[in-house]
Amino acid sequence: MSPGEIFVWELMGTAMLTLLGCGVVANVTLRKSLGHNGGWLLVNFGWGFAVFAGASIAAPSGAHLNPAVTLGLAVNGQVSWSQVPVYLAAQLIGAAIGAGLCWAAYKMQFDTHDDPAGTLGIFSTGPTVSSAPWNLVTEIIGTFVLVFWIILSPGATGGPDGVPEFGNAALGYAAVTFIVIGIGASLGGPTGYAINPARDLGPRIAYALLPIRGKGSANWGYSWVPVVGPIVGGVLAGLLALALPVH
Amino acid sequence: MSPGEIFVWELMGTAMLTLLGCGVVANVTLRKSLGHNGGWLLVNFGWGFAVFAGASIAAPSGAHLNPAVTLGLAVNGQVSWSQVPVYLAAQLIGAAIGAGLCWAAYKMQFDTHDDPAGTLGIFSTGPTVSSAPWNLVTEIIGTFVLVFWIILSPGATGGPDGVPEFGNAALGYAAVTFIVIGIGASLGGPTGYAINPARDLGPRIAYALLPIRGKGSANWGYSWVPVVGPIVGGVLAGLLALALPVH
Amino acid sequence: MSPGEIFVWELMGTAMLTLLGCGVVANVTLRKSLGHNGGWLLVNFGWGFAVFAGASIAAPSGAHLNPAVTLGLAVNGQVSWSQVPVYLAAQLIGAAIGAGLCWAAYKMQFDTHDDPAGTLGIFSTGPTVSSAPWNLVTEIIGTFVLVFWIILSPGATGGPDGVPEFGNAALGYAAVTFIVIGIGASLGGPTGYAINPARDLGPRIAYALLPIRGKGSANWGYSWVPVVGPIVGGVLAGLLALALPVH
Amino acid sequence: MSPGEIFVWELMGTAMLTLLGCGVVANVTLRKSLGHNGGWLLVNFGWGFAVFAGASIAAPSGAHLNPAVTLGLAVNGQVSWSQVPVYLAAQLIGAAIGAGLCWAAYKMQFDTHDDPAGTLGIFSTGPTVSSAPWNLVTEIIGTFVLVFWIILSPGATGGPDGVPEFGNAALGYAAVTFIVIGIGASLGGPTGYAINPARDLGPRIAYALLPIRGKGSANWGYSWVPVVGPIVGGVLAGLLALALPVH
Repeated sequence: MSPGEIFVWELMGTAMLTLLGCGVVANVTLRKSLGHNGGWLLVNFGWGFAVFAGASIAAPSGAHLNPAVTLGLAVNGQVSWSQVPVYLAAQLIGAAIGAGLCWAAYKMQFDTHDDPAGTLGIFSTGPTVSSAPWNLVTEIIGTFVLVFWIILSPGATGGPDGVPEFGNAALGYAAVTFIVIGIGASLGGPTGYAINPARDLGPRIAYALLPIRGKGSANWGYSWVPVVGPIVGGVLAGLLALALPVH
Repeated sequence: MSPGEIFVWELMGTAMLTLLGCGVVANVTLRKSLGHNGGWLLVNFGWGFAVFAGASIAAPSGAHLNPAVTLGLAVNGQVSWSQVPVYLAAQLIGAAIGAGLCWAAYKMQFDTHDDPAGTLGIFSTGPTVSSAPWNLVTEIIGTFVLVFWIILSPGATGGPDGVPEFGNAALGYAAVTFIVIGIGASLGGPTGYAINPARDLGPRIAYALLPIRGKGSANWGYSWVPVVGPIVGGVLAGLLALALPVH
Repeated sequence: MSPGEIFVWELMGTAMLTLLGCGVVANVTLRKSLGHNGGWLLVNFGWGFAVFAGASIAAPSGAHLNPAVTLGLAVNGQVSWSQVPVYLAAQLIGAAIGAGLCWAAYKMQFDTHDDPAGTLGIFSTGPTVSSAPWNLVTEIIGTFVLVFWIILSPGATGGPDGVPEFGNAALGYAAVTFIVIGIGASLGGPTGYAINPARDLGPRIAYALLPIRGKGSANWGYSWVPVVGPIVGGVLAGLLALALPVH
Repeated sequence: MSPGEIFVWELMGTAMLTLLGCGVVANVTLRKSLGHNGGWLLVNFGWGFAVFAGASIAAPSGAHLNPAVTLGLAVNGQVSWSQVPVYLAAQLIGAAIGAGLCWAAYKMQFDTHDDPAGTLGIFSTGPTVSSAPWNLVTEIIGTFVLVFWIILSPGATGGPDGVPEFGNAALGYAAVTFIVIGIGASLGGPTGYAINPARDLGPRIAYALLPIRGKGSANWGYSWVPVVGPIVGGVLAGLLALALPVH
């Protein structure tokens, strides 16, 4: 698969991911939205099915959608290092575009929201209790679970040849969806489970750039945690998987 | 497959869709119903499994159930234009019939509801903040996600020969169900996610015609938005898919 | 398969169905239970997975678990009429046994519940607004959806030879589970969705017989509705399926 | 498969189980967590997907993750008795490690929780109404459902050769997930559904050992119930399955 094709599919898949993922948080957060106060399980299912939609669409490029997955697979030898920059660029740009589309879909709800300065959480994650080292630990553990599971479960993602190895793409993507819902339900409480640098940084850039009515700070002081934590978690998963007997 | 067979299967599938889909909103809305105030996730699951039920039953005709899907597939060359009118007529009539059956199932709850003028939302969608252009944008984006996903995920629907291409009908319909739950959770907040002209217009006609106790307006002024928006979204998805390298 | 084997598998599967199904209502209803006030979606998922568990276990006998399914399949020619009485007896007895096991699992919660006279709803269904004809309509429509879907979706259940036709038992039972969750979410509001005469009558008999502390009436006056309604709905589904072109 | 390999896979799978399982209870319990008061269904889904994640990872060792499953399969002849001690040791140690990781992920939330003495429930189960015999009955019934279902549903787990028999690992683990969600929804109300001695005892040991701020008692007086009950339930399931005609 050419770098251009990888770029197109990963960009579209990651845009779908953040369109739907940021969308469910918008739905729960914004006062004039039908899902307002819909609860944490709604958020978990929304992000889970966002992964399902994005992964289905990005099947030809292996459906990484996440730099931590790309790097974990590269460490584990399943992705060529020369392709890594293409994946990462597409994921970051796609994530920003998807967040912009989410804002368009909820334009009237953003315009009528009574706490516009507090809308960053629709785009990017933040901790409930600030502590850089412990917030890092939470993101490392959550991302480790995701990437370790992906590497050990053959077929959850396909390789760059676009052939998911489960023998059935829908099953593989449903399995990843279950894992992402589980991570959100179980490990999302402290920091909002970025577990994906592109998913957090792309929408944060979009938040900084978009003309959102009355918007607040993009909280750049925290922004490195949901980038570094997931990368560390993904690389650790790739390394541990290398040390295991063949699965 | 003959036009008559397409008509019968699409009509039955779409009737099943709106019977169960309008049903879950009735359950959540009507005061003397066991699911009253059951929350947005309940609504999302109800509509999702309504799609699952309707799609399973309409498998022989390809399980479109939605003019936006039919038109998107036609633009993409997967459905013959000569069959399009049959699909659309069956979907609209089926959707009205299903809504009527929903009213019958909840007859006593409609008769004892304390806000009968506000029951249109059980049948058809409406915006939380009125703005024709932005409401259109929301419906276009939501329907684009649906139809783009269907076109790019081989096997999600079968062709008119009735053979779902996933190799397993249940998997394909479960996958569509996940997407519909996801669209509802993530993009349903502003307008109630019609994402299907027949699903909205058919029940609106039924609402206007049925002798529902104390019913209010059918809000015809808004009715074109959930028709035009989904059609635009579906056609855009078909066109973009044409421009992509083969999936 | 011998009548004795049909009896054993159907009895065990239906006991599993009502143990878990009545269990989730006990969990939501009883004050000293961890799922107290857990909401309608919890009830829907509980009954859905109760069907999944019971159907998996009763696979050898075709996993009917429901007289309306047995009769609908018999009308449609998929079950021999001579086997029908064995199925129905096993289902009724199994349903009563499962309800008794549910009571044992929640014994301390029943003993400490502050409204013991109102515990019938844990065992059997009842309408939120009484009206024999309209309650019948609701149960007929709900059961029609279930049995019509089962007949038209090849593989959802296997025949008495114990071989589910989907090619994969788990998929078929998951599909039925989705339909049952959907019926509960969408059509369960008015009457509590018996949609199964054994599921309602068996636990009602158990409620009448068990030494439940401070228990109230078994409401025999309503008990015929969730028996007759589902039978009519199942038979109608079998007849309509006969009139359709082969699916 | 060598004892060492069994030990590694079971330990990792069970650690994943309690990391995610205890995690969802931490999320719902701790005041400064995003899922605080998220409801019983969230807990059920969290534990269900915890089983999915742990079982996927422990596929090579058959994914028992639970002494009651190991013993039930041994009684039924599907696991060699000589391997049982390896399974049990790995499960107990893994469960304690996973609970420790959960504490690390929620460190700041534990440190800022306003009822630190009441945090045992995040790690281990307890009854809402104390009664050793009836609490045992509840745990026996719940575990019986789990193990009986696993034994009768070929492919839900693989043997020690690491080959799940469903023909598709994802489907088998999804099926177990549905059962575990169902048991939690339906039978978890009275005692919190340990249904797994390692899942309860391992985290209880971790709770006793970890320097959790302001922690309370580990309630050793109750600790035998979620060990003995599940073992009895699992062995009963293995024995009953032996008495049945081949499934």
